Amino acid sequence: MTKSRPHIGLLGGGQLARMLALKGHELGLIVHVLSADTSDPAAQVVRFHHLGDPGSYEALESFLDTVEVATFESEFLDNEILGRAVDHAQKPVRPYPQLMGLLQDRLSQKQLLEEHKIPTLPFAAVDEAAPAHQFLEKHKTGIVLKKRRFGYDGYGTFHARTKPEIDAIFAQKSARDQFIAEPRCPFRRELAITVVRDSFDRLIAYPLVETKQQNSRCLWVKGPIRHRAAGPLLARLKRFLRRIDYVGAMSFELFETPKGLLINEVAPRVHNSAHCTLDAFDLDQFSAHLLAIAGEKLPEPKPRAPGYAMMNLLGRGTTTPHWELSGEVHLHWYGKLDNRPGRKLGHLNALAKSADEALSKVRRAERKFHL
Amino acid sequence: MTKSRPHIGLLGGGQLARMLALKGHELGLIVHVLSADTSDPAAQVVRFHHLGDPGSYEALESFLDTVEVATFESEFLDNEILGRAVDHAQKPVRPYPQLMGLLQDRLSQKQLLEEHKIPTLPFAAVDEAAPAHQFLEKHKTGIVLKKRRFGYDGYGTFHARTKPEIDAIFAQKSARDQFIAEPRCPFRRELAITVVRDSFDRLIAYPLVETKQQNSRCLWVKGPIRHRAAGPLLARLKRFLRRIDYVGAMSFELFETPKGLLINEVAPRVHNSAHCTLDAFDLDQFSAHLLAIAGEKLPEPKPRAPGYAMMNLLGRGTTTPHWELSGEVHLHWYGKLDNRPGRKLGHLNALAKSADEALSKVRRAERKFHL
Repeated sequence: MTKSRPHIGLLGGGQLARMLALKGHELGLIVHVLSADTSDPAAQVVRFHHLGDPGSYEALESFLDTVEVATFESEFLDNEILGRAVDHAQKPVRPYPQLMGLLQDRLSQKQLLEEHKIPTLPFAAVDEAAPAHQFLEKHKTGIVLKKRRFGYDGYGTFHARTKPEIDAIFAQKSARDQFIAEPRCPFRRELAITVVRDSFDRLIAYPLVETKQQNSRCLWVKGPIRHRAAGPLLARLKRFLRRIDYVGAMSFELFETPKGLLINEVAPRVHNSAHCTLDAFDLDQFSAHLLAIAGEKLPEPKPRAPGYAMMNLLGRGTTTPHWELSGEVHLHWYGKLDNRPGRKLGHLNALAKSADEALSKVRRAERKFHL
Repeated sequence: MTKSRPHIGLLGGGQLARMLALKGHELGLIVHVLSADTSDPAAQVVRFHHLGDPGSYEALESFLDTVEVATFESEFLDNEILGRAVDHAQKPVRPYPQLMGLLQDRLSQKQLLEEHKIPTLPFAAVDEAAPAHQFLEKHKTGIVLKKRRFGYDGYGTFHARTKPEIDAIFAQKSARDQFIAEPRCPFRRELAITVVRDSFDRLIAYPLVETKQQNSRCLWVKGPIRHRAAGPLLARLKRFLRRIDYVGAMSFELFETPKGLLINEVAPRVHNSAHCTLDAFDLDQFSAHLLAIAGEKLPEPKPRAPGYAMMNLLGRGTTTPHWELSGEVHLHWYGKLDNRPGRKLGHLNALAKSADEALSKVRRAERKFHL
């Protein structure tokens, strides 16, 4: 730390901001949170909660005045408004808002990846049924239509194998919805990797992990995963971060296919697939992201065990959630007030001699949670 | 958790309360802190900071009204005032204030240990020079005089090998100072052990660790330490906690002597000697203490590595403290505003294949801190 008490602003109050706040406290940063509700997960764990909407210019402007640097937990902020507030406050937001704008739109995200020669699936912008039909003719095993904005955890993603299926999707879409089309990808596994770059051009990466989705929502993660294509891919990803002069954590979701590793999606922030780093490494993704955005040098993170796993604790709508904690896992609870089915309420991490053994631990421990 | 959002009160705002607060957040507890300054380490990391003196009846009374259960980070509160506030608010403070009262006075602490057949050094109450002279005649290699109250980190402890040295100590003492005398103990090493008991009579213990003091202040801790007397001693300590119906963490500082393990001091709270558990176990001492006082069942904590170590980061009065973080340790910074020499500003934890290897890691990393 070159400066012992920097004030850091977090835009948003969800679980990612909560974990950033807790790790910021450990590092001795002074953490401020801007969010719209005092009961938000991150609002509950900071002294300096600023009530306001991170999408509002006025709220952003006065918030940025109180901090030295800010970061966001979601790439779906209005980047034009954020950019104006940054210009006015003369305080940096890292990663920088223009880049957030490019990555929040799946079309410009794909174009950016293509431009930097990051291996990804072919794609086309399709705002109506006709070009989607054409795309299906080229990719006969089926296509995936994704809303260009605000999609996450499977929301805004539609699968179609026939033209009538495409027509049905477009019949339901609202006038302003825009899509990209990708071919259906028969992957073996879904993987993910998180890379962090500091402002001194130091780049660190956490090992490749496997991620398991259920109903398009992350269920568990295990790692490390060895893959012969990981080295060359990581070199490309690091070059990408360097060329766009990125500062902070960036997470890549990957498909493992017979043709190699393909990037499915990119998030310019800390990510669910790297929550296991909270316990599996001396330096976790949240601390690494905070050090990077605070202008500190990133040390090389060292693993604490040969294998690790994370399991999300998803709401099941129980009226009185209760649990008994196992001593072989570490609980991270988000403090959300309601328990909607499928909602991420917390997660469990475990370390072990292997990824599979760690996964067994979190599975066993998860059964004692009645949510 | 039988109840998903209990409100927990922490009496005091120092680093122990800060780490309790951070682990409380992780567990999903709602943490309230009562302390006299908004810049206190724990005050900085909670939404619910209550400004007030934990030694004042009025502050305690209104604080206890807002929480379901409270605990303290220092056993030096006024137990009579605390007891009255507990009676009025009808909210439990755990460990219970009467016991805190017995343990905060070294004389009643020693009497309690003796009563429960916990091996400890011989002692005598000495409020003036004459009985101290008599004690020295029985223990000719020298005696240690300890103030009965408010001693910590070597404050209030005096060594004497001759009667004139005893006289010099009593010449300087204030009228209300009371002492106990113990024989000088030529120990091989200082060790420590932390035991936690929940309200279901489950008892867990972290392994024995070695603690290294410098100028009577803890410098580093490493573990686990194997000792053939550890098993029988632990059985006695567990029986002690059970007999006094203790709930929460209790730490024991030990001397390793040619005659075996002797208890030197007892703290009815989380303790510096167990800070390494934050990273070395899936369930750390802070989480275990909180679960116990919240009325939850304690799981058995599992170590994450064969060896671990902790090094305190002590202030050296630098005007602009700065550091570079190593990736092979985990930093816990306390956010204290001033940097007085000797002050505990934070600590580093490391895991490794052995205790000594972990100690080397924290030693190496500590050199990059310029405090």
